[in-house]
Amino acid sequence: MEPRLTLITLGVTNLAASTQFYEQNFGWRRLPASNEGIVFFQLNGMQLALFPDRELAADAGVAADNRGFKSFSLAHNLRSEQEVDKLIRELENKGVTIVKRPQKVFWGGYSSYVSDPDGFLWEIAFNPFLPLDEKGNVVS
Amino acid sequence: MEPRLTLITLGVTNLAASTQFYEQNFGWRRLPASNEGIVFFQLNGMQLALFPDRELAADAGVAADNRGFKSFSLAHNLRSEQEVDKLIRELENKGVTIVKRPQKVFWGGYSSYVSDPDGFLWEIAFNPFLPLDEKGNVVS
Repeated sequence: MEPRLTLITLGVTNLAASTQFYEQNFGWRRLPASNEGIVFFQLNGMQLALFPDRELAADAGVAADNRGFKSFSLAHNLRSEQEVDKLIRELENKGVTIVKRPQKVFWGGYSSYVSDPDGFLWEIAFNPFLPLDEKGNVVS
Repeated sequence: MEPRLTLITLGVTNLAASTQFYEQNFGWRRLPASNEGIVFFQLNGMQLALFPDRELAADAGVAADNRGFKSFSLAHNLRSEQEVDKLIRELENKGVTIVKRPQKVFWGGYSSYVSDPDGFLWEIAFNPFLPLDEKGNVVS
Protein backbone atom coordinates (compact mmCIF):
# COMPACT_ATOMS: atom_id res chain seq x y z
CA MET A 1 0.00 0.00 0.00
CA GLU A 2 1.59 3.25 -1.12
CA PRO A 3 2.12 5.82 1.64
CA ARG A 4 -0.51 8.20 0.33
CA LEU A 5 -3.56 10.00 1.61
CA THR A 6 -6.22 11.16 -0.83
CA LEU A 7 -8.95 12.68 1.28
CA ILE A 8 -9.68 13.58 4.87
CA THR A 9 -13.38 13.71 5.61
CA LEU A 10 -14.54 15.50 8.74
CA GLY A 11 -17.94 14.40 10.02
CA VAL A 12 -19.59 17.68 10.99
CA THR A 13 -22.81 18.43 12.85
CA ASN A 14 -23.78 21.48 10.77
CA LEU A 15 -22.47 21.51 7.22
CA ALA A 16 -23.36 25.16 6.54
CA ALA A 17 -21.69 26.37 9.73
CA SER A 18 -18.57 24.34 9.11
CA THR A 19 -18.33 25.46 5.51
CA GLN A 20 -18.61 29.07 6.63
CA PHE A 21 -15.85 28.48 9.20
CA TYR A 22 -13.37 27.20 6.64
CA GLU A 23 -14.32 29.78 4.02
CA GLN A 24 -14.50 32.86 6.22
CA ASN A 25 -11.91 32.10 8.87
CA PHE A 26 -9.34 30.04 6.99
CA GLY A 27 -10.03 31.84 3.71
CA TRP A 28 -10.33 28.63 1.70
CA ARG A 29 -12.56 28.31 -1.38
CA ARG A 30 -14.84 25.32 -1.84
CA LEU A 31 -14.31 23.34 -5.03
CA PRO A 32 -16.97 23.32 -7.76
CA ALA A 33 -17.56 19.61 -7.03
CA SER A 34 -19.14 20.67 -3.72
CA ASN A 35 -22.92 20.53 -3.35
CA GLU A 36 -25.51 20.95 -0.60
CA GLY A 37 -24.63 17.54 0.82
CA ILE A 38 -20.84 17.67 0.88
CA VAL A 39 -18.14 20.31 0.54
CA PHE A 40 -14.58 19.87 -0.74
CA PHE A 41 -11.45 21.99 -0.39
CA GLN A 42 -8.28 21.38 -2.41
CA LEU A 43 -5.22 21.03 -0.19
CA ASN A 44 -1.66 20.01 -1.04
CA GLY A 45 -2.08 16.89 -3.17
CA MET A 46 -5.24 15.87 -1.34
CA GLN A 47 -8.65 17.18 -0.46
CA LEU A 48 -10.49 18.03 2.74
CA ALA A 49 -14.18 17.11 2.74
CA LEU A 50 -16.91 18.25 5.11
CA PHE A 51 -19.78 15.78 5.39
CA PRO A 52 -22.58 15.35 7.97
CA ASP A 53 -21.28 13.11 10.76
CA ARG A 54 -24.28 10.79 10.84
CA GLU A 55 -23.98 10.24 7.11
CA LEU A 56 -20.26 9.53 7.42
CA ALA A 57 -20.93 6.95 10.14
CA ALA A 58 -23.70 5.41 8.02
CA ASP A 59 -21.44 5.33 4.96
CA ALA A 60 -18.88 3.31 6.88
CA GLY A 61 -21.57 1.26 8.63
CA VAL A 62 -20.50 2.18 12.14
CA ALA A 63 -22.48 3.61 15.08
CA ALA A 64 -22.58 7.42 15.19
CA ASP A 65 -21.90 7.50 18.93
CA ASN A 66 -19.31 10.22 18.74
CA ARG A 67 -18.74 12.16 21.91
CA GLY A 68 -15.90 14.18 23.30
CA PHE A 69 -12.37 14.39 22.03
CA LYS A 70 -11.97 13.35 18.40
CA SER A 71 -8.59 11.71 19.13
CA PHE A 72 -6.71 13.39 16.33
CA SER A 73 -5.39 16.73 15.18
CA LEU A 74 -4.54 18.37 11.89
CA ALA A 75 -1.46 20.55 11.72
CA HIS A 76 -0.83 23.60 9.56
CA ASN A 77 2.86 24.45 9.82
CA LEU A 78 4.37 27.84 9.06
CA ARG A 79 7.93 28.99 8.55
CA SER A 80 8.61 31.02 11.70
CA GLU A 81 7.28 31.85 15.15
CA GLN A 82 6.29 35.26 13.81
CA GLU A 83 4.09 33.66 11.14
CA VAL A 84 2.36 31.63 13.84
CA ASP A 85 1.68 34.73 15.95
CA LYS A 86 0.38 36.61 12.91
CA LEU A 87 -2.01 33.87 11.81
CA ILE A 88 -3.35 33.32 15.34
CA ARG A 89 -4.02 37.06 15.65
CA GLU A 90 -5.89 37.02 12.35
CA LEU A 91 -7.96 33.99 13.34
CA GLU A 92 -8.74 35.44 16.76
CA ASN A 93 -9.91 38.67 15.14
CA LYS A 94 -12.32 36.56 13.07
CA GLY A 95 -13.73 35.01 16.24
CA VAL A 96 -12.03 31.64 16.00
CA THR A 97 -11.68 29.78 19.31
CA ILE A 98 -8.01 29.72 20.33
CA VAL A 99 -7.62 26.49 22.33
CA LYS A 100 -3.94 26.98 23.15
CA ARG A 101 -2.01 30.21 22.68
CA PRO A 102 1.26 30.11 20.74
CA GLN A 103 4.07 28.96 22.99
CA LYS A 104 7.43 27.26 22.90
CA VAL A 105 6.88 23.54 23.42
CA PHE A 106 9.01 20.68 24.73
CA TRP A 107 9.89 19.26 21.31
CA GLY A 108 11.61 22.47 20.29
CA GLY A 109 8.89 24.09 18.26
CA TYR A 110 6.33 26.86 18.70
CA SER A 111 2.76 25.68 18.76
CA SER A 112 -0.87 26.68 19.21
CA TYR A 113 -4.27 25.09 18.66
CA VAL A 114 -7.52 26.45 17.29
CA SER A 115 -10.86 24.66 17.10
CA ASP A 116 -13.40 24.39 14.30
CA PRO A 117 -17.15 24.38 15.13
CA ASP A 118 -17.14 20.65 15.96
CA GLY A 119 -14.02 20.75 18.10
CA PHE A 120 -11.74 19.43 15.37
CA LEU A 121 -8.31 20.67 16.36
CA TRP A 122 -5.95 22.50 14.03
CA GLU A 123 -2.46 22.93 15.38
CA ILE A 124 -0.82 26.09 14.01
CA ALA A 125 2.90 25.60 14.50
CA PHE A 126 6.47 26.26 13.56
CA ASN A 127 8.74 23.21 13.69
CA PRO A 128 12.40 24.00 12.98
CA PHE A 129 13.06 20.28 12.48
CA LEU A 130 10.44 19.82 9.76
CA PRO A 131 11.43 21.95 6.78
CA LEU A 132 8.80 22.85 4.21
CA ASP A 133 9.60 23.02 0.51
CA GLU A 134 8.70 26.02 -1.65
CA LYS A 135 5.10 24.76 -1.94
CA GLY A 136 4.78 24.22 1.80
CA ASN A 137 4.97 20.45 1.51
CA VAL A 138 6.87 18.29 3.98
CA VAL A 139 9.58 16.24 2.36
CA SER A 140 11.55 13.74 4.39
CA MET B 1 -4.12 30.84 5.46
CA GLU B 2 -2.75 28.67 2.68
CA PRO B 3 -4.78 25.54 1.91
CA ARG B 4 -2.17 23.15 3.23
CA LEU B 5 -1.97 20.30 5.69
CA THR B 6 1.39 19.39 7.24
CA LEU B 7 0.66 16.60 9.67
CA ILE B 8 -2.18 14.37 10.78
CA THR B 9 -1.70 13.05 14.29
CA LEU B 10 -3.76 10.08 15.40
CA GLY B 11 -4.18 9.76 19.16
CA VAL B 12 -3.76 6.03 19.76
CA THR B 13 -4.29 3.90 22.86
CA ASN B 14 -1.30 1.59 22.27
CA LEU B 15 1.58 3.12 20.33
CA ALA B 16 3.40 -0.20 19.75
CA ALA B 17 0.29 -1.96 18.48
CA SER B 18 -0.62 0.92 16.19
CA THR B 19 2.91 1.18 14.83
CA GLN B 20 2.89 -2.55 14.11
CA PHE B 21 -0.45 -2.17 12.30
CA TYR B 22 0.82 0.51 9.93
CA GLU B 23 4.16 -1.19 9.37
CA GLN B 24 3.00 -4.77 8.95
CA ASN B 25 -0.43 -4.32 7.39
CA PHE B 26 0.00 -1.17 5.35
CA GLY B 27 3.67 -1.86 4.68
CA TRP B 28 4.78 1.66 5.64
CA ARG B 29 8.20 2.40 7.15
CA ARG B 30 8.57 4.69 10.15
CA LEU B 31 10.82 7.70 9.68
CA PRO B 32 14.13 7.95 11.56
CA ALA B 33 12.68 10.91 13.50
CA SER B 34 10.41 8.42 15.28
CA ASN B 35 11.17 7.44 18.87
CA GLU B 36 9.53 5.47 21.67
CA GLY B 37 7.10 8.30 22.32
CA ILE B 38 5.92 9.15 18.80
CA VAL B 39 6.09 7.57 15.36
CA PHE B 40 6.08 9.32 12.00
CA PHE B 41 5.36 8.09 8.47
CA GLN B 42 6.09 10.15 5.36
CA LEU B 43 3.02 10.50 3.13
CA ASN B 44 2.46 12.63 0.04
CA GLY B 45 3.76 16.06 1.01
CA MET B 46 2.78 15.56 4.64
CA GLN B 47 3.33 13.19 7.52
CA LEU B 48 1.16 10.87 9.58
CA ALA B 49 2.05 10.74 13.27
CA LEU B 50 0.98 8.20 15.89
CA PHE B 51 0.96 9.62 19.42
CA PRO B 52 -0.65 8.42 22.67
CA ASP B 53 -4.19 9.81 22.81
CA ARG B 54 -3.94 11.13 26.38
CA GLU B 55 -0.75 12.98 25.51
CA LEU B 56 -2.36 14.45 22.40
CA ALA B 57 -5.30 15.70 24.45
CA ALA B 58 -2.91 17.09 27.07
CA ASP B 59 -0.81 18.77 24.38
CA ALA B 60 -3.88 20.62 23.11
CA GLY B 61 -5.17 21.18 26.63
CA VAL B 62 -8.52 19.45 26.08
CA ALA B 63 -10.21 16.66 28.04
CA ALA B 64 -9.31 13.15 26.85
CA ASP B 65 -12.92 11.99 26.98
CA ASN B 66 -12.82 10.26 23.65
CA ARG B 67 -15.44 7.57 23.16
CA GLY B 68 -17.02 5.97 20.15
CA PHE B 69 -16.91 7.14 16.56
CA LYS B 70 -13.96 9.41 15.78
CA SER B 71 -16.07 11.52 13.41
CA PHE B 72 -13.65 11.42 10.51
CA SER B 73 -12.12 9.13 7.94
CA LEU B 74 -8.94 9.00 5.91
CA ALA B 75 -9.17 7.86 2.30
CA HIS B 76 -6.59 6.01 0.24
CA ASN B 77 -7.73 6.10 -3.38
CA LEU B 78 -6.62 3.68 -6.07
CA ARG B 79 -6.95 3.74 -9.83
CA SER B 80 -9.53 1.00 -10.49
CA GLU B 81 -12.09 -1.26 -8.83
CA GLN B 82 -9.68 -4.15 -9.35
CA GLU B 83 -6.97 -2.38 -7.37
CA VAL B 84 -9.44 -1.89 -4.52
CA ASP B 85 -10.37 -5.59 -4.51
CA LYS B 86 -6.72 -6.60 -4.58
CA LEU B 87 -5.68 -4.37 -1.69
CA ILE B 88 -8.65 -5.40 0.45
CA ARG B 89 -7.79 -9.08 -0.14
CA GLU B 90 -4.20 -8.40 0.91
CA LEU B 91 -5.24 -6.52 4.04
CA GLU B 92 -7.79 -9.18 4.97
CA ASN B 93 -5.12 -11.86 4.62
CA LYS B 94 -3.03 -9.89 7.11
CA GLY B 95 -5.90 -9.92 9.60
CA VAL B 96 -7.07 -6.34 9.12
CA THR B 97 -10.69 -5.70 10.11
CA ILE B 98 -12.75 -5.03 6.99
CA VAL B 99 -15.52 -2.69 8.16
CA LYS B 100 -17.26 -2.45 4.78
CA ARG B 101 -16.59 -4.73 1.82
CA PRO B 102 -15.82 -3.12 -1.55
CA GLN B 103 -19.03 -2.11 -3.27
CA LYS B 104 -20.39 0.32 -5.79
CA VAL B 105 -21.66 3.36 -3.94
CA PHE B 106 -24.24 6.04 -4.64
CA TRP B 107 -21.74 8.73 -5.68
CA GLY B 108 -20.51 6.62 -8.57
CA GLY B 109 -17.41 5.11 -7.04
CA TYR B 110 -16.32 1.81 -5.52
CA SER B 111 -15.59 1.93 -1.84
CA SER B 112 -14.66 -0.06 1.23
CA TYR B 113 -13.53 0.69 4.78
CA VAL B 114 -10.95 -0.92 7.03
CA SER B 115 -10.21 -0.11 10.66
CA ASP B 116 -6.93 0.41 12.49
CA PRO B 117 -6.57 -0.80 16.11
CA ASP B 118 -8.28 2.29 17.54
CA GLY B 119 -11.16 2.28 15.10
CA PHE B 120 -9.69 4.99 12.88
CA LEU B 121 -11.32 4.42 9.51
CA TRP B 122 -9.43 4.15 6.25
CA GLU B 123 -11.61 4.23 3.17
CA ILE B 124 -10.04 2.23 0.33
CA ALA B 125 -11.74 3.49 -2.82
CA PHE B 126 -11.80 4.13 -6.52
CA ASN B 127 -13.37 7.42 -7.55
CA PRO B 128 -13.64 7.90 -11.31
CA PHE B 129 -14.34 11.61 -10.77
CA LEU B 130 -11.17 12.28 -8.77
CA PRO B 131 -8.17 11.60 -11.02
CA LEU B 132 -4.78 10.98 -9.45
CA ASP B 133 -1.58 12.26 -11.00
CA GLU B 134 1.44 10.06 -11.63
CA LYS B 135 2.47 10.36 -7.99
CA GLY B 136 -1.00 9.52 -6.71
CA ASN B 137 -1.77 13.07 -5.68
CA VAL B 138 -5.15 14.68 -6.18
CA VAL B 139 -5.02 17.77 -8.33
CA SER B 140 -8.12 19.86 -8.86
